[in-house]
Amino acid sequence: MSMALQLEQVEFANEAFYLAFEGMDFDAMSHLWSEQREVICLHPGWPALVGREAVLESWRGILSNPQQGQVSFYGAQSQQIGEDTAAVVCYEQAGGNVMVATNVFVVEGDRLRLVSHQAGFCANPPPAPA
Amino acid sequence: MSMALQLEQVEFANEAFYLAFEGMDFDAMSHLWSEQREVICLHPGWPALVGREAVLESWRGILSNPQQGQVSFYGAQSQQIGEDTAAVVCYEQAGGNVMVATNVFVVEGDRLRLVSHQAGFCANPPPAPA
Repeated sequence: MSMALQLEQVEFANEAFYLAFEGMDFDAMSHLWSEQREVICLHPGWPALVGREAVLESWRGILSNPQQGQVSFYGAQSQQIGEDTAAVVCYEQAGGNVMVATNVFVVEGDRLRLVSHQAGFCANPPPAPA
Repeated sequence: MSMALQLEQVEFANEAFYLAFEGMDFDAMSHLWSEQREVICLHPGWPALVGREAVLESWRGILSNPQQGQVSFYGAQSQQIGEDTAAVVCYEQAGGNVMVATNVFVVEGDRLRLVSHQAGFCANPPPAPA
């Protein structure tokens, strides 16, 4: 029996993703990604990564890179997009760049897990909150 | 009663999206987007567009722009990501640029409709088929 999808939980899951990212916490990141669905991850400028192994390998590299700058997000908007799926769009600040991202979560048992993440450069983002 | 999700249908729906794009066919594009879910569209470099009105307004502009070049796609990979949702990642060729895109479709009645599209520049895409 899976829990029903709730947008508040989606926002928590999205926050957990950025906490893992910012905290360079590979275990937390690994736990966030779906184990039941084929996952998709499109880092800015990269070719598409499909499948848990390729996606987690990319995150292992990113999260162990001492050059990786601070990441924070703002302006999140969550939408239910299917019976058991929801998407969050938000802006990511990393160094002087702003990216815009779509994160898709699926209900898996009693929690939400990431099934798709795409981030890309945004030329004209809304201003970050002060 | 909604149809069950089938990946073959997802591939057709993804193709229909690019046919509407390439054919500059706003009516077909409009018909492709979900009417039951809040839709999300992230054009390369643009801020996020959320909601059918904002998304279709952007497509009206793009599809009526005589400067808009030919668009084609390749390398599509489809994945079921939820009970009634599927995602397609593929590469888009437009002018000399290659973008990588995620298109998310949801079962709506007897068809599949787009609920999220994000495209972004890809620095190192796989080669297009000859």
